[in-house]
Amino acid sequence: MRMSTLFLRTLREDPADAEVASHKLLVRAGYIRRAAPGIYSWLPLGLKVLAKIEAVVREEMDAIGAQEVHFPALLPKEPYEATGRWTEYGPNLFRVKDRKEADYLLAPTHEEMFTLLVRDLYSSYKDLPAILYQVQTKYRDEARPRAGLIRGREFIMKDSYSFDIDEAGLDASYAKHRGAYQRIFDRLGLDYVIVAAEAGAMGGSRSEEFLHPCEIGEDTFVRSAGGYAANVEAVATPVPGEQDASGIGPAHVEDTPDTPTIDTLVAAANQIAPRQDRPWTAADTLKNVVVALVSPTGERELLVVGLPGDRQVDAKRLEAAVFPAEVDQTTEADFAAHPELVPGYIGPQVLGPNGAPREEDRTDGAGGAVRYLLDPRVVPGTAWVTGANERGKHVFDLVAGRDFTADGVIDVAEVRAGDEAPDGSGPLELARGIEIGHIFALGQKYAKALELSVLDQNGKAVTVTMGSYGLGVTRVLAAIAESTSDEKGLAWPVPVAPAHVHVLATGKDPAVFETAERLADELDSMGVEVLYDDRPKVSAGVKFADSELLGLPYALVVGRGLADGVVEVRHRASGDREELPPEQAVARLRELLTGAGLSLR
Amino acid sequence: MRMSTLFLRTLREDPADAEVASHKLLVRAGYIRRAAPGIYSWLPLGLKVLAKIEAVVREEMDAIGAQEVHFPALLPKEPYEATGRWTEYGPNLFRVKDRKEADYLLAPTHEEMFTLLVRDLYSSYKDLPAILYQVQTKYRDEARPRAGLIRGREFIMKDSYSFDIDEAGLDASYAKHRGAYQRIFDRLGLDYVIVAAEAGAMGGSRSEEFLHPCEIGEDTFVRSAGGYAANVEAVATPVPGEQDASGIGPAHVEDTPDTPTIDTLVAAANQIAPRQDRPWTAADTLKNVVVALVSPTGERELLVVGLPGDRQVDAKRLEAAVFPAEVDQTTEADFAAHPELVPGYIGPQVLGPNGAPREEDRTDGAGGAVRYLLDPRVVPGTAWVTGANERGKHVFDLVAGRDFTADGVIDVAEVRAGDEAPDGSGPLELARGIEIGHIFALGQKYAKALELSVLDQNGKAVTVTMGSYGLGVTRVLAAIAESTSDEKGLAWPVPVAPAHVHVLATGKDPAVFETAERLADELDSMGVEVLYDDRPKVSAGVKFADSELLGLPYALVVGRGLADGVVEVRHRASGDREELPPEQAVARLRELLTGAGLSLR
Repeated sequence: MRMSTLFLRTLREDPADAEVASHKLLVRAGYIRRAAPGIYSWLPLGLKVLAKIEAVVREEMDAIGAQEVHFPALLPKEPYEATGRWTEYGPNLFRVKDRKEADYLLAPTHEEMFTLLVRDLYSSYKDLPAILYQVQTKYRDEARPRAGLIRGREFIMKDSYSFDIDEAGLDASYAKHRGAYQRIFDRLGLDYVIVAAEAGAMGGSRSEEFLHPCEIGEDTFVRSAGGYAANVEAVATPVPGEQDASGIGPAHVEDTPDTPTIDTLVAAANQIAPRQDRPWTAADTLKNVVVALVSPTGERELLVVGLPGDRQVDAKRLEAAVFPAEVDQTTEADFAAHPELVPGYIGPQVLGPNGAPREEDRTDGAGGAVRYLLDPRVVPGTAWVTGANERGKHVFDLVAGRDFTADGVIDVAEVRAGDEAPDGSGPLELARGIEIGHIFALGQKYAKALELSVLDQNGKAVTVTMGSYGLGVTRVLAAIAESTSDEKGLAWPVPVAPAHVHVLATGKDPAVFETAERLADELDSMGVEVLYDDRPKVSAGVKFADSELLGLPYALVVGRGLADGVVEVRHRASGDREELPPEQAVARLRELLTGAGLSLR
Repeated sequence: MRMSTLFLRTLREDPADAEVASHKLLVRAGYIRRAAPGIYSWLPLGLKVLAKIEAVVREEMDAIGAQEVHFPALLPKEPYEATGRWTEYGPNLFRVKDRKEADYLLAPTHEEMFTLLVRDLYSSYKDLPAILYQVQTKYRDEARPRAGLIRGREFIMKDSYSFDIDEAGLDASYAKHRGAYQRIFDRLGLDYVIVAAEAGAMGGSRSEEFLHPCEIGEDTFVRSAGGYAANVEAVATPVPGEQDASGIGPAHVEDTPDTPTIDTLVAAANQIAPRQDRPWTAADTLKNVVVALVSPTGERELLVVGLPGDRQVDAKRLEAAVFPAEVDQTTEADFAAHPELVPGYIGPQVLGPNGAPREEDRTDGAGGAVRYLLDPRVVPGTAWVTGANERGKHVFDLVAGRDFTADGVIDVAEVRAGDEAPDGSGPLELARGIEIGHIFALGQKYAKALELSVLDQNGKAVTVTMGSYGLGVTRVLAAIAESTSDEKGLAWPVPVAPAHVHVLATGKDPAVFETAERLADELDSMGVEVLYDDRPKVSAGVKFADSELLGLPYALVVGRGLADGVVEVRHRASGDREELPPEQAVARLRELLTGAGLSLR
């Protein structure tokens, strides 16, 4: 590859819409270009990195006995209707009508199609286990595509699916995938944490995410020193035992003027009704948060979440908990339709089973007042200070189970650093990460819906047990860029770099260009991938800046030093430089690349 | 690969919807499965063939200096609106609305996006020439998807685009592609003919198709002994010189009862008004054929085509000539709206410029009667027998140019074997073919519409001159299957076979299985791709039938003969068989594969 003809132009300015380093640098270095929101075109260098990542993924999938197939992206609606996902995916699905008005979709994932294909081909327990995979373009109409390749609407995924006769088989297939993913990310040099996760739209009994720890990640996860790790959506709050409320007097309403917030309420409580043992804190108050939910079919419903006043509702935990419904902002109209909800002073007495039956307000037809769900910490016997449903009034000593109940439990309060791990393995710490893989023990959800069964040893039909396993190829590329780049540009590790050595000829001396070309040829003949900056009229400064921006692992600079018999080997990641005679430089590069695992001729 | 675990089930029955050999066999042999009309899933063996074809395509594209990029399939409407193709493609385009109601399409081809990308990166004549390509999934909502992979709605295409400063540059880029395509098809062992073609939706000055000659092909092409070759849509009828009509008397209407067809008319003419020199023939009559056209925006218009009565209108030539309008069936309502059109007796006197102005009947707002276009053979001075626009009456000696004119010329009459080639290179013969490639000298259509210009040596902005070049990867696979298969199954040439040698162990003797496995390992260690039929309880007959159906180039059969020290090498294409001692069989296979161009270890 020669810079003089390579289809590449580097940009000095960050693209206006880019917030994160990988996005800025991949665009500036000419690896990708935006075609539409969340939709990117791949330029030559980007495509080379992508191909290298895909090759590693394929090798490790093949190594666990997975077989590669390839499904269409454009699929008929019917299989997705059979599993309910045509509706569940809601507006996240790109939907297409063909010229005969038949419904199609651009597939976000292919559980249905793999299930049907296996049903089509296999019929006996002897055919199992089977693991099938594809590396394929996926579509998801994200509400907020962002961060370049990290949350796109058209992206490349490796998705695989396992088919087993029973749970033990699934466990083995799941373990194989877990191992393959570990080897893939290790080979790619990408840090990861495996965390317990929610299955979400996929369904199934159990799932784990592979997260690349990274400040700009969209996922928050927790871990304890004792080894617990989970996506924040999947953290189950430890439930305290029921408490004895026999010593607590009857609830009493107090005037608390101008206390619409937890802080003002706590201050007022300590003034109006000071406790003997200790002051009131936010943790003594019960906050009732109103949210609006929209079902996949578009029905809107209000929900009130009751939780200790020292905790916020975590938006992601809430989204995961109410899936497939989506969370929407509440509006003035919502409150107008529910005059019993007095903002700042909402209490349980008018909510859920405590409220008046108001069938006309419920879209789910269940009758009763606005649905009311409680944080798991609000166990029977706990006493709370909470709203009295009248402006400027709160109620004290309102005891859960005695004075109010709820429609159920919802575990959506924020998880905080220092919270106890659910398995008792110590306090939690929080971090952010990019989801680079997600593995699901699906069980029989899809096999049942699409009637995939095989005959067992006794000739009896048995529903097949499935797993599904996703790995975001384009997202992995972005995560590597994110974790390896610096303020000067990209800095690819050897296994995924678009080429291994950037040979730069600087200055105007023809001898420099001749030597540079000869060294590039020598490296090339060893099997080293070379990008040669042969541009005749470009300054050394521009060449250095471009080289740092493009981020090949090593640069070989042939310039003024050549007159003194030396060239320079530059290490992109460390910034190290070595001056060596030309032939020693080639030998040094061979040594470095071989050390990084490359097999050269 | 082992048959015992390969994700493969062969079928004994042809799929119900399959008409052509490639479709039947690719499904029966477990290479592909139908997911929806014109949309297929790829199973492991199919995917391997596809990957081999893609690799050959990439090598030859890289060899002409083309650089690989990759565009999204899901694209915003705007660029396609700028070139008019959003409308022109009509119902052939899959259209998508995203969650914000923005319009997208699934791209059938990417001229617009490549043009914009080059505009984004390049600005100087020094950046040119450039050739960019991708191997990518394309979409086209075909009215009649058919023949399996031959006319699909989701398919893989290699599309490339050339960018040059002038026509001479385009000529060079065009010639490079022509050469690359020849090398690709030669390497794949696929016969082809290069024919002149119509540019159709693509636009541009000049285009050629690569057709694989094949009975089931959808394209008809012509060639002459002198070297002329063209797609039937692109054949230009030689135009005779104007004729001297001074000796022809005035036109006269004759009673010709019950002569609604050309045959009945010719018989009546010879009876009523016999000629002195020779009998009347169909070639003396002017037939006026009514067709309905629907514009991409849905407007319907009638058109009358006047042509010699011995020729039919060719549906494909008509489609190409009226593009972007589509041809529709005429209806009773069409004729009811035009009482001047008397079926069986239509004559030029009421048509086009000869007819009464009937503005209200024209959707194009041009005024005048139903539009009338003439075959190029109907030159001024030629005299015709044609309809008199009254049931049972025809007019004789109606002279073109003297007694009637038309709105223009349309060259859509059928081309017949024996017709003279337009370049005078002899009579034409007709054949059918599958379009496997199409190369277009686009010129400046897209560069103008999307404002792609570069500065020339004098600093003046010059519009870039483009070419575009398509190669149907999935269709090439089907064409190879079509041309190499026989009644027993597929028969792949070595360069594209999913594996090179099918090792079969037949019978129950463990020694047979041990030897088969050892030979498979030996071949594998040489770099030969082996599919080993290790299934323990499957009969020799089933194994042989599967092997012939799957169509690997060679089979190595280890069976009863092993006791006598021999195994069998079978040649799939020729049916030849050789009995050899095991080690000699391995050596023979090495010799055969090396002879077919494979480099082995």
